[in-house]
Amino acid sequence: MTADPILLTPGPLTTSLRTKQSMLHDWGSWDGDFNAITARVRESLLRIIHGEGTHECVPLQGSGTFSVEAAIGTLVPRSGHVLVPLNGAYCQRIARICQVLGRRLTTIAYAEDQPVRASDIEAQLKQDPSITHVALVHCETSTGILNPLTEIAAVVARHGRGLIVDAMSSFAALQIDARTTPFDALIAASGKCLEGVPGIGFVLVRRSVLERCEGVSHSLAMDLFDQWTYMTRTTQWRYTPPTHVVAALDAALAQYFEEGGLEARGARYAANCSQLLEGLRGLGLRSFLPAAIQAPIIVTVHAPQDPRYEFKRFYQAVKERGFILYPGKLTTVETFRVGCMGQLGAAGVPGAVTAIGAGLESLGIKVPRPQRLSA
Amino acid sequence: MTADPILLTPGPLTTSLRTKQSMLHDWGSWDGDFNAITARVRESLLRIIHGEGTHECVPLQGSGTFSVEAAIGTLVPRSGHVLVPLNGAYCQRIARICQVLGRRLTTIAYAEDQPVRASDIEAQLKQDPSITHVALVHCETSTGILNPLTEIAAVVARHGRGLIVDAMSSFAALQIDARTTPFDALIAASGKCLEGVPGIGFVLVRRSVLERCEGVSHSLAMDLFDQWTYMTRTTQWRYTPPTHVVAALDAALAQYFEEGGLEARGARYAANCSQLLEGLRGLGLRSFLPAAIQAPIIVTVHAPQDPRYEFKRFYQAVKERGFILYPGKLTTVETFRVGCMGQLGAAGVPGAVTAIGAGLESLGIKVPRPQRLSA
Repeated sequence: MTADPILLTPGPLTTSLRTKQSMLHDWGSWDGDFNAITARVRESLLRIIHGEGTHECVPLQGSGTFSVEAAIGTLVPRSGHVLVPLNGAYCQRIARICQVLGRRLTTIAYAEDQPVRASDIEAQLKQDPSITHVALVHCETSTGILNPLTEIAAVVARHGRGLIVDAMSSFAALQIDARTTPFDALIAASGKCLEGVPGIGFVLVRRSVLERCEGVSHSLAMDLFDQWTYMTRTTQWRYTPPTHVVAALDAALAQYFEEGGLEARGARYAANCSQLLEGLRGLGLRSFLPAAIQAPIIVTVHAPQDPRYEFKRFYQAVKERGFILYPGKLTTVETFRVGCMGQLGAAGVPGAVTAIGAGLESLGIKVPRPQRLSA
Repeated sequence: MTADPILLTPGPLTTSLRTKQSMLHDWGSWDGDFNAITARVRESLLRIIHGEGTHECVPLQGSGTFSVEAAIGTLVPRSGHVLVPLNGAYCQRIARICQVLGRRLTTIAYAEDQPVRASDIEAQLKQDPSITHVALVHCETSTGILNPLTEIAAVVARHGRGLIVDAMSSFAALQIDARTTPFDALIAASGKCLEGVPGIGFVLVRRSVLERCEGVSHSLAMDLFDQWTYMTRTTQWRYTPPTHVVAALDAALAQYFEEGGLEARGARYAANCSQLLEGLRGLGLRSFLPAAIQAPIIVTVHAPQDPRYEFKRFYQAVKERGFILYPGKLTTVETFRVGCMGQLGAAGVPGAVTAIGAGLESLGIKVPRPQRLSA
């Protein structure tokens, strides 16, 4: 194999060779061996949030957004009313889903460097009893900001509303405990912190909620109630699953538990993140978010204030040095993003920082002499 | 690698090692190298139906059913009216999609061993001018029956209605020429006759039709208009694509054209099918369909009239001999199915027939001494 560039992106990310090699087999989607894989994956995903006994894992074909739409469409009645706090692109997407699906929508706007405040949610719930659900993004991948899930979940539960959490880029790296953090549904995907390959999402739903959702969905393919009942009855997926992606997720989960589970994964990403922040500072680059609200998942970095800076050329220069960056997603400020996730290879974060520094220099941008990173 | 059983199933099927090995790389979904793969795949798929210039290829995450629902949801206006001829499980699924999506629906019922008749479609279109679309399954995977697409397309075009074709298990093996067979949309998926791995579908849509579909879709994730315009503008997928599945489809398409394209693929499956039918006859087994309406994709076989026959045990016995069968999908008759697709390995169809014969014998079912198959 040639040396592929390392993906400094928040999914797809660089997976282990073992995970990729698990895709060197074809599986019959009706066969018992494959159904055993599906069952094992579903159990493992529930275990990560301590949801065994109370929640159900409903996997769904497609990207994470498919699962988010499926959760809104299946769980929020057509007469429902969803409160969506907005501080990034993925909350915006949830709001758009509500609009397309014809669910009543109320939003609370924040700046993109401001976390959602539980007190604002509480005020809105008190003021408007017609709100049936709150839909929250846990970690906004568009900036890397972390929203205070625990506080918000407590508020929503106290007011007897349903909480739907997009935990796409936090699940399995940041602690979420279904026993103490009440939610109706939590959504994530195969190709994020679990370090599988992209192709399926999954929704962890409170069973007592899911049982009441028959016939709600706007869609056949994205009906999580139907998907769940079929899977429960037959042990199979309702429609053809991406068998290789499921097998890769199974392999990735095995490595996840071998590594030490959530604690170890979270610690690895946190170490990557702080090493990255330190290294970027050494290059004279500024992080968009203050450290207190920075999730250890992806770092948004201000572009250098230099007329020679041009993202496309910078991207290409860093890629030639073996690393793939992620573009910024902010409309008002020029930024780029660097993921802390995935198998960063032998060079690791120091290698990435060196490549970023050299990439800037190749554009003629002067960077301070990088100091040796603390290990 | 251990010898995996050969899948005698209509997708997922056994792919080549080269196709699987193409998944040993991780791709950035934003990166130019990956976007080039997506562009090449879209062009190749259009080329197979000679749709360059007139049609657009819109790939979509998920199984084939996701693409079928997306096509109905995006192309049929909410005030539209869909005529669905029914002669199998996949037409039934289209009818159900219309119901869930709130599109007006009319059906014409056939027995599962009867092909749809163009004259029935014509009579219905004459009688009911409110019908805007006909949705047809080309080859019904539930039985293997082939519906007369060319005749039906001519009738639908003559009456100025739209035709949506589910060509899931015929595309790329049976001739469909967009220059002479008019349709609005044709749907297939990565893991069928193209011999890729499952995980994406695609819709080949007449551009002049697609251009009028803004804002029609019931869904954000399955909005083909949005998916198309975003992809056209950015060269990227709108939401995270299953990168490894796309790379595998690219590799599978390269092998498809190297093999000789549609003609060669169709001829290989036809040879598999006739060899299979001959071999099964030699075992005293009867095909459900007469040869004239049997597509060379999948064969439905009557279960032996023997009290010792039990599908689960038979399946297991054949699996132990290296082949995975497909269960029947008929409600009234006990059958099993055998696919003619995919990389059947060194033993090929004769090996499959031998395994089926030995599987039956292991249940104590007497089979005639199988004759040597003609090559």
